[in-house]
Formats: sequence, structure tokens, C-alpha cells
Amino acid sequence: MHSPPKPHPFEAKLAQTWPPATWGDVNVLVAVSGGPDSMALLRSVCALKSCGQGRVFVGHFNHRLRGEAADADEAFVAEVAKELRLPLEVGRLPDGPAQRFGKHGLEGGARRARYRFLTETAAKVGARLVAVAHTADDQAETILHRILRGTGIGGLAGMRRARPLSEAATLVRPLLAFRRAEIQAYLHDLGQDYRVDATNLDVRRTRNRIRHRLLPELADRFNPNVVEALLRLGRLAAEVQLVIEPIVDLRLEQCLVESDGQAVWLDFNRVPPQSPYVVREMFMAVWRRQGWPLREMSYEQWESLATLAEPSPQRRVRTFPGGVTAETSNGNVRLRRRV
Amino acid sequence: MHSPPKPHPFEAKLAQTWPPATWGDVNVLVAVSGGPDSMALLRSVCALKSCGQGRVFVGHFNHRLRGEAADADEAFVAEVAKELRLPLEVGRLPDGPAQRFGKHGLEGGARRARYRFLTETAAKVGARLVAVAHTADDQAETILHRILRGTGIGGLAGMRRARPLSEAATLVRPLLAFRRAEIQAYLHDLGQDYRVDATNLDVRRTRNRIRHRLLPELADRFNPNVVEALLRLGRLAAEVQLVIEPIVDLRLEQCLVESDGQAVWLDFNRVPPQSPYVVREMFMAVWRRQGWPLREMSYEQWESLATLAEPSPQRRVRTFPGGVTAETSNGNVRLRRRV
Repeated sequence: MHSPPKPHPFEAKLAQTWPPATWGDVNVLVAVSGGPDSMALLRSVCALKSCGQGRVFVGHFNHRLRGEAADADEAFVAEVAKELRLPLEVGRLPDGPAQRFGKHGLEGGARRARYRFLTETAAKVGARLVAVAHTADDQAETILHRILRGTGIGGLAGMRRARPLSEAATLVRPLLAFRRAEIQAYLHDLGQDYRVDATNLDVRRTRNRIRHRLLPELADRFNPNVVEALLRLGRLAAEVQLVIEPIVDLRLEQCLVESDGQAVWLDFNRVPPQSPYVVREMFMAVWRRQGWPLREMSYEQWESLATLAEPSPQRRVRTFPGGVTAETSNGNVRLRRRV
Repeated sequence: MHSPPKPHPFEAKLAQTWPPATWGDVNVLVAVSGGPDSMALLRSVCALKSCGQGRVFVGHFNHRLRGEAADADEAFVAEVAKELRLPLEVGRLPDGPAQRFGKHGLEGGARRARYRFLTETAAKVGARLVAVAHTADDQAETILHRILRGTGIGGLAGMRRARPLSEAATLVRPLLAFRRAEIQAYLHDLGQDYRVDATNLDVRRTRNRIRHRLLPELADRFNPNVVEALLRLGRLAAEVQLVIEPIVDLRLEQCLVESDGQAVWLDFNRVPPQSPYVVREMFMAVWRRQGWPLREMSYEQWESLATLAEPSPQRRVRTFPGGVTAETSNGNVRLRRRV
């Protein structure tokens, strides 16, 4: 008899924030591009997967945007999956001109196609969890990008550790607490190769400009720990939203007169005057519950909605994206979506 | 008889956010450097000051950091005050090497000396309000600087519109809603001259690097409306803090067993488990109430304090800046400052 091998510190840290006991019994689909982050995720998941009835699947999406290099990535991931004896699922972006992505652009369109593939593959293999390899550095880049583009406190919290992907599957990000340097050190210790995606160096892409130009400049000129500063601000924003959420839910419950699939009636006279922040969050919660198009709402439109909650005898009607109409008088707001 | 002259749009906007009826009856000390922002503030305050028993005073602080240019600024402000028939108070930074500012550095030391002068002058002339000319652009720069340096949600809100300066006087920032371009246009319409402070162009200073290099780069490379995005995030952070504050105050009241000038006893068993965010804010509120050195506390120290609120039979003692000692067991936290 011999004791099991001591886990690598990287794996021990992962086990602490994402205990294998919580996912050992379900099928997990790991999204693997072949780059360092997803290779570290795959290897550490395999290292921790010692018990439980769940299986680990490798999912690779070939964007086919980089010709031979993309096919070589796919071959590399297939090789790794074979070595690790893991079933592999491969998706491919169909041929055709990039213009077909329309308003989402090439990057956005490819991302949507990748998530669609992951969702469908999770259903196919019965995976309850889909693990993607976003790191702390990705999170800091996301937070900075959102600040520059314009965000509220919710968006400032960055990417969530977990979010529903479909009725059956949840997207998880087990590496959000890991810095790029920890990942490199782990792969080095394992002697694990990875692929370098040349398009990640293309600074015409916003994300790459933030990663390779802006963040190094900010570290150099303003604060060497700017990434940590952004991550902490993001954590605080997430915490504060968790304090606000129960208030919003309670107020919404108190205001709600009736609702169905198409319509919601809120009576703001039933609650004391609320902060505009809470009122806007109440409307956002309504949009989420109803499945109305949330992303198409601008901040000005949420503000406009919040003014409808103010008691005014004047009857006002406004229309919002996705055909949602709001009609108000005397603090009663009736929202209806044209079907 | 003739109707009074129509106010300039700049003045009308100022009157809307800072109604003259709210300050017409008290003495107002306007801090005037001679630069465009403070000239616009002074002229618009004078234009709106048509009634009430209060008087307007001009306060100028000569930093004496720029030799003849600084003295010329002082002479310019004296000339303007004379034209406007306003009493002038001048303060000067005493001679001596810059090293005397110690850890606050030259800029920080000069700022402290300026605020001391404004506070003393307000007391001398009986001014209840001290108006400074920070603009929306200054606010965006402050918010961005704080993000880069590391800030929480409270700091993200930026400079407040009003804050106590002393027992008797309040600092106000009436121009926080005005962009630099509006100020330039107003001064142009008035034909009002102003002084240009050459040190404001010195990019060795952090604030100037943010103003003249970073923000233009961000506007150029990421979002032409980055200033507006930062201002909106700041407003949302301020709003969210206003939602959290009453919760913090209520919880603090419920926890507080006793307190005096030196010591505070909190019993966290009296409230349901609170979010770490609320617990940290509760401790910050204690620090503020007690007048303990708030700025010297790091985020890690607030986090350390928050862990003391968790119920643990183990007795723990920790010391914080300014000689504050925290002792805890079973959710009872006793804070004491060594006198």
C-alpha cells in the first residue's frame, strides 16, 4: 500500500474553491481550445477527478478562422484527449463569409456559435456542468473593458463563477481565482504543451489591445498592481449587488399586483418611495423574469422607466426594445409585451 | 421699468442644480485660483447673487511653487475681485524646502495647506459655504485615478457635491455637473480672461498624465464617451451607497452595546448574519463616528476586522493604525483606542 500522490499546489487551490465532491458525481464538459488556460483547466480537473460517478468530456470548437492553424489546434486537442483517455466532442463553425455574423461581428458571432456548440454538446453527453477556463486576468480585462465601454455596478462585478447555460446545464468558471503566471507555472511543472493562438496577439481586437497594451501601460505608469485593484473592485461590486438583490426582490413582491407571460402590473403606491437605483433594479428583475430583451435596453431607457414609478396623475405611455410597452398613471405601471 | 437680463444658459443650469435661494442668505467663500474653472464659478455665483443677505468673498491661495507666475496669478485674482467689488482674502504657502511636506509630498502638502487656509478664512469672514470649482472632467479623472490606484464602491462615487469642512463650514462643488467645454464657452461669451497654470501641463504629475494622455488615449482607442461612462458609473456607485447606508446604520444601532470616546462594544449576535460588505461598512461607520484614522486603514485591515465579527469561541486580539485594538470572542467585538 502507498499513499496517493500529493496534489500539485495548483490542484489543491482549485480543490479548495471548487471542491471535487460538488462535481464528482455529474458529467462535466470541459471547453478546451488547446491554449494554456484550458490545458491547465483540463489537466487539473482530471487530477482532481478521482471519485464519483460523473465523467469528464472534452469539447473543442474549431472556429476555422485561421485555416491550417485552427485544424492543427483541433488535432492537438484530439491527441491530448486520447492520452488522457477522455471522450472528445468537436464542433466546427460552418464555412461561409464572415459577413453572415451581421451586427454581432466576427468575434461576437464566433462566440455565440461556440456557446451554442457547448450547450448542445452538454445536452448530448448529459453534462450538467460546462467548465470554461477564464482566469483572474481575463476577469480584470473584462472589468476594465466594461468600465471603458460604460457599465453599472452589476456589470462591474465581471464574469460570474456560474451561470445557467440551459435548462439542464450550468456554465462554471473554476479558474477565475488563478493568475496567468500560476497557470504557466503549473503547465511547466507538468511538462504540458499547449497551442499559442496567433490571433490572441492581434491588437486590432479590443480584448487584445487591453491585454497587451493598455494593462501593461497602466501597470507601468500608474499602479503595478492594477489587475488586483480591478479584481477587488469587481468583488466589492458583486458583494454590494448581493446586498441590494433581496431588497429589490422584496419590493418587487410588494408592488406586484398581477403578472402573466405577456403583462406585468406594478403598483408603486404599495411601497415607500424607493431610491432610483432600487427602482431601476426592480424593472431589470421584471425584464429577467419575463425573459424580455434585457441587453437591448440602454441605461437611459432604464432611467426613463424609473421615472414612470413616480406618482403622477398624468397618463404616460412609452415603448421599449422588443415591443414592451409601459403605461403609467398614479404610480401604477402596466408593462405589456406585444406577442 | 425693464425686465432683468436673461441669465446665461450656464448660469441657468447652475441655478437649477444649486438654487440661489439655498445659499443667498449665507456668506460664501469662493476659492479662486485664476484658472478657467474658478473664474467661471466666480462669475456665475456673482451673476446669480441678486438677493439674500449673504456676501460673496474671494479666497486665493498662492502656492508660491512657481515663482513669478504664482505672484502674477495672485495679482490677476486681486484685479478681478476689485472689478467685481468683492472682498479678497489671500493665503500664501510659507517659504521653505519642499521636503517639509514629508509623506504627503509636494502636491499633497500644498493641497492640505490650501484647505487649511480656506477653513480658517471661512471662519474669519463667517462663511458657511466654501465653493470650489471642480468640474465633471475633474470628477471623471478622480474616478479613473481611484480605479487604477484601487478603490471600493464608496470611493468610486468620486468627489461629493458637499462635505463638512469644519464645525461651521461646508465645502461645496457647484460645478460638478459642468464639462470643461461648457466652461470655456461661458468664459468666451463673457469675454472673461483667465490664467493658465503651466504646472497643469506637467505630465510628471499623475493627475496631468490622466488628463492629457490617458483619457484622450482611452477616448481614441476604446470609447469616445469614456468620460460620460466614468461619470455614470460614479453616480451609480453613489446611489448604491445611499441604499446601503441606512442598512449599515440600522445594523450598527442593533449591535451597539455601549460606546464612549475611547471604546466601542459591538455584539454581532444581536443581528442575523450580515454580508461581509455590510460588516466592513459597519466598522467604517464606527471609525468615522469615533474620529479614528480612517485613511490609514487598508482594505486587508477592514477584511481582517470583518472576520472578527464571525462567531468564534477563540479570543482574538488585533491592533490597527492609530493604536486601535480590537478584541473579540463569540461575536462580541470590543474596540479601544489607546489615548
